[in-house]
Amino acid sequence: MTTIAFIGLGIMGGPMAAHLVDAGYDVVGCNLSRPAVDRLVEHGGRGTNSVAEAVAEADVVITMVPDSPDVEGVALGADGIFANAKPGTLYIDCSSIRPDVSRRVADEGTARGFRVVDAPVSGGEIGAVEATLSIMVGGEPDDVALAMPILEKVGRTIVHVGPPGAGQTVKAANQLIVAGTIELVAEAIVFLEAYGVDTEAAVRVLAGGLAGNAILDRKAANMLKREFTPGFRIDLHHKDMGIVTSAAREAGVAIPLGAHVAQLVASLRAQGHGALDHSALLLQVEQLSGRNSS
Amino acid sequence: MTTIAFIGLGIMGGPMAAHLVDAGYDVVGCNLSRPAVDRLVEHGGRGTNSVAEAVAEADVVITMVPDSPDVEGVALGADGIFANAKPGTLYIDCSSIRPDVSRRVADEGTARGFRVVDAPVSGGEIGAVEATLSIMVGGEPDDVALAMPILEKVGRTIVHVGPPGAGQTVKAANQLIVAGTIELVAEAIVFLEAYGVDTEAAVRVLAGGLAGNAILDRKAANMLKREFTPGFRIDLHHKDMGIVTSAAREAGVAIPLGAHVAQLVASLRAQGHGALDHSALLLQVEQLSGRNSS
Amino acid sequence: MTTIAFIGLGIMGGPMAAHLVDAGYDVVGCNLSRPAVDRLVEHGGRGTNSVAEAVAEADVVITMVPDSPDVEGVALGADGIFANAKPGTLYIDCSSIRPDVSRRVADEGTARGFRVVDAPVSGGEIGAVEATLSIMVGGEPDDVALAMPILEKVGRTIVHVGPPGAGQTVKAANQLIVAGTIELVAEAIVFLEAYGVDTEAAVRVLAGGLAGNAILDRKAANMLKREFTPGFRIDLHHKDMGIVTSAAREAGVAIPLGAHVAQLVASLRAQGHGALDHSALLLQVEQLSGRNSS
Amino acid sequence: MTTIAFIGLGIMGGPMAAHLVDAGYDVVGCNLSRPAVDRLVEHGGRGTNSVAEAVAEADVVITMVPDSPDVEGVALGADGIFANAKPGTLYIDCSSIRPDVSRRVADEGTARGFRVVDAPVSGGEIGAVEATLSIMVGGEPDDVALAMPILEKVGRTIVHVGPPGAGQTVKAANQLIVAGTIELVAEAIVFLEAYGVDTEAAVRVLAGGLAGNAILDRKAANMLKREFTPGFRIDLHHKDMGIVTSAAREAGVAIPLGAHVAQLVASLRAQGHGALDHSALLLQVEQLSGRNSS
Repeated sequence: MTTIAFIGLGIMGGPMAAHLVDAGYDVVGCNLSRPAVDRLVEHGGRGTNSVAEAVAEADVVITMVPDSPDVEGVALGADGIFANAKPGTLYIDCSSIRPDVSRRVADEGTARGFRVVDAPVSGGEIGAVEATLSIMVGGEPDDVALAMPILEKVGRTIVHVGPPGAGQTVKAANQLIVAGTIELVAEAIVFLEAYGVDTEAAVRVLAGGLAGNAILDRKAANMLKREFTPGFRIDLHHKDMGIVTSAAREAGVAIPLGAHVAQLVASLRAQGHGALDHSALLLQVEQLSGRNSS
Repeated sequence: MTTIAFIGLGIMGGPMAAHLVDAGYDVVGCNLSRPAVDRLVEHGGRGTNSVAEAVAEADVVITMVPDSPDVEGVALGADGIFANAKPGTLYIDCSSIRPDVSRRVADEGTARGFRVVDAPVSGGEIGAVEATLSIMVGGEPDDVALAMPILEKVGRTIVHVGPPGAGQTVKAANQLIVAGTIELVAEAIVFLEAYGVDTEAAVRVLAGGLAGNAILDRKAANMLKREFTPGFRIDLHHKDMGIVTSAAREAGVAIPLGAHVAQLVASLRAQGHGALDHSALLLQVEQLSGRNSS
Repeated sequence: MTTIAFIGLGIMGGPMAAHLVDAGYDVVGCNLSRPAVDRLVEHGGRGTNSVAEAVAEADVVITMVPDSPDVEGVALGADGIFANAKPGTLYIDCSSIRPDVSRRVADEGTARGFRVVDAPVSGGEIGAVEATLSIMVGGEPDDVALAMPILEKVGRTIVHVGPPGAGQTVKAANQLIVAGTIELVAEAIVFLEAYGVDTEAAVRVLAGGLAGNAILDRKAANMLKREFTPGFRIDLHHKDMGIVTSAAREAGVAIPLGAHVAQLVASLRAQGHGALDHSALLLQVEQLSGRNSS
Repeated sequence: MTTIAFIGLGIMGGPMAAHLVDAGYDVVGCNLSRPAVDRLVEHGGRGTNSVAEAVAEADVVITMVPDSPDVEGVALGADGIFANAKPGTLYIDCSSIRPDVSRRVADEGTARGFRVVDAPVSGGEIGAVEATLSIMVGGEPDDVALAMPILEKVGRTIVHVGPPGAGQTVKAANQLIVAGTIELVAEAIVFLEAYGVDTEAAVRVLAGGLAGNAILDRKAANMLKREFTPGFRIDLHHKDMGIVTSAAREAGVAIPLGAHVAQLVASLRAQGHGALDHSALLLQVEQLSGRNSS
């Protein structure tokens, strides 16, 4: 029986770990706060407070933590994965972090005899709960092949996109498109409201043509109601826009709209809305149009 | 038997008129250049070179012409619809024009006893050929009800979005989202190529998550191949971006990304690429990134 | 003695007409509201309520009115200049209007035997009061030569920049630079305040180097105090940004920063700040930074 | 006699060190490449290849090096200033670096008993040669007072703007305004050329009004001639735009135009123009307008 150490049982990691229990894996969960561990134990998993302990006996380690420094700490630290897991262990990082950090962690792990795969996800809390995540996988083909059966338990569209770090690069591009599309839909909605159009009908017809997108399908209804409970927080999308703009700058790639929407996300956060869903970009379009709904 | 005068038998109007013939309507086509009329006649319709003649005997008039002045000419001119058609005639304008012009034409027509509906379409040449267009309909409920059975012969998602002109307003919003989404996808593609990612795989996984959109589904494959045969020309999208930025300015609505992408479209056109498909925004992202593929 | 009909005695036109009286011209003022005419009369000029009457006896006509339609009305209307002045009269338009309208008015006037010069000004109320305006002059060399002695009574830097309409084109470029520079200075100030820098000292040193500009010299002190009494109103600068973005679009010229700041000006106006000085762009930078001072 | 160790004798540092020799200081120069040291020796200074040696006997140390890591190396390294200079030595950093790095270096130096002042400059090669630099000084009042007599030998406008690091913060704001103003002037020039205006005359009149700025005064003539010999290289301004956008992001300050022009600078560099003067932003405006002059 395969033992999986799962580090980070938050809004995304929690349901993902539970699916792996359901799929018959022996899952040892580890989390900064205890209640999430208890929930996993109730669901049939095991728990521990120590990363070192969790990974020592694991065949596979999965991390789902907030940011680049967290991954660096858990992977490279004295109490972390590479210092305590058995050589040959497969390490799958599902966090969304900087591609360059992801490559460096993979290099370090490979040098120490580990198999390292980056597998950031898209699809949000609903995708995690329903196991319908899209997963962007970077890594060596053999390592990715080992990871695939596990990832298939938590996602639906799982694609190997390139060498280590490539998953993070695609995730960065994903976040660029998502933020930009939310902003475009927000601008369209405020524009249509200003002209007194039936916006529910408009969203329906927009979704059916070349303007169709997942934001219109999944988020526009809540945007029309000014319902901005996350979902995915502005704070996190701000972090992600920092990743994609830095990586584009590093590569000399022009992302005019990407950089522009990064400013709009940063501004929304600076105004104290970091804890709202990213679709709250609508609030800023309203504000800039002198049409504050609040 | 209902007689429909169809003015404007171009890349969109031609197949739409043919579908109406197939549906059993008596269709009289009229077009600036003769071959398009001949094709309709071969398909079982009738033809004429005179708008006045075409509309005189019609129960319904449909226009599908390039721009606001064309609609004004055809609707309001001495040889045009309101001067020559029978009062009570239903006039459906499928062109994409300025909402304020659309409202003015509707007011003028109503004052003279006509029923006027604006019904711009989205879905491109393929949508016209396959009768799967999305159609945004503005008009009085009774008039829209009369137009519906006809529109259903040429489209799939047909939605009444508000009073006269509202169809054009939604079409303007549609074009804002479409141009913006193309640019976002183009930025993502060039970014991914710069990092050596497998872009076909990346497009697949991006399309499956919250970044999913119709551009990834229908245009990204050609973008990866630098295949920019229209489709929908930059020249026309430039015209449409002028409509939406003017209308937003008029209403005091902020469209920061919309205005930004309008500049990018204008620039691509100024560089001589007006006849390419709008997905050629990719060429400009490459240029700005010093990665010219041509 | 040369008789000058001066149409438009507002915040700019009033002091300009007074300077012409002081210089010994016979000035007949005409204005929509009477008190401005009375002030000119007290200053030694003459007054009338009728444009037709004012221009009938004039050797030179000067207009200083708000917008393109006003110039069209005064120049081309039945009670206007070309219909009532003597052929050969020199017409100097000091208003800031669309270059294409300016060219059309000049063409019309020339066809009717008039000499037409466009001479928009920069320098604001202070420049008008102190007769230190910068004046951008478009017109035929002979006509400009006739206008020069008059313009020298109201301005300091007076430059012939090209054929009819060229003055308006340069004025449009002027407004692009002014709005952009205000925004740049506003961003710098909010940035420096956020870091606790001594901003008065900073403005002093910034003004002395390559970042130096007239906004730092003349407006930054008031910006630091959040003193936004006009000066030049956002409403008018919004009109001017419409002129320059339209003209750039028409010519296929990319003005990425110009178009961006046009959006910011429009947004400030949409939020109800149209009557503030254009340096109030600072308020919006604060708002976007979550640092509202009000 | 005061001994000054001057580290970094490049295009800026070379003339600055020479002025200090002229002013009667005992100047020991140190530079990565030898010829610059030789030139200082010929001018009456002394030279060495070792930072440790240079600073060991100095009363004052000045650095003028390219980037943040260079300052960190020279100040904090084992062969560097704090490890080898006498406690109590005054350290003046004239480089343009990240404000946070500047603060950290100051903290470190203060903790070890040094007096640390940041004093980045503006004015370019001409300003260095003519000793007319603008200098933005950050530091404790007592330390700044000691630095002033020295800085007055190399600059004209020297202003104490705040605590350690504040000089760098103001320099960052300076670079934001400079890049933005160049871009605005470039947009104006291409716009005016497209309309056939006499651009030399236009620059003259623009410089006289509210649009007036140092770029019009010092760089526009060369821009009209497409003469882009540095001056200040795009590569360096790209580095500086990275500093200001990062610092603004860190502080939550919105810099919409600043971020936009940072993209334009990055794009120009990505296209291979990094070695041109920053006024070459004009080339990109031309390119985006389909008006390539090359």
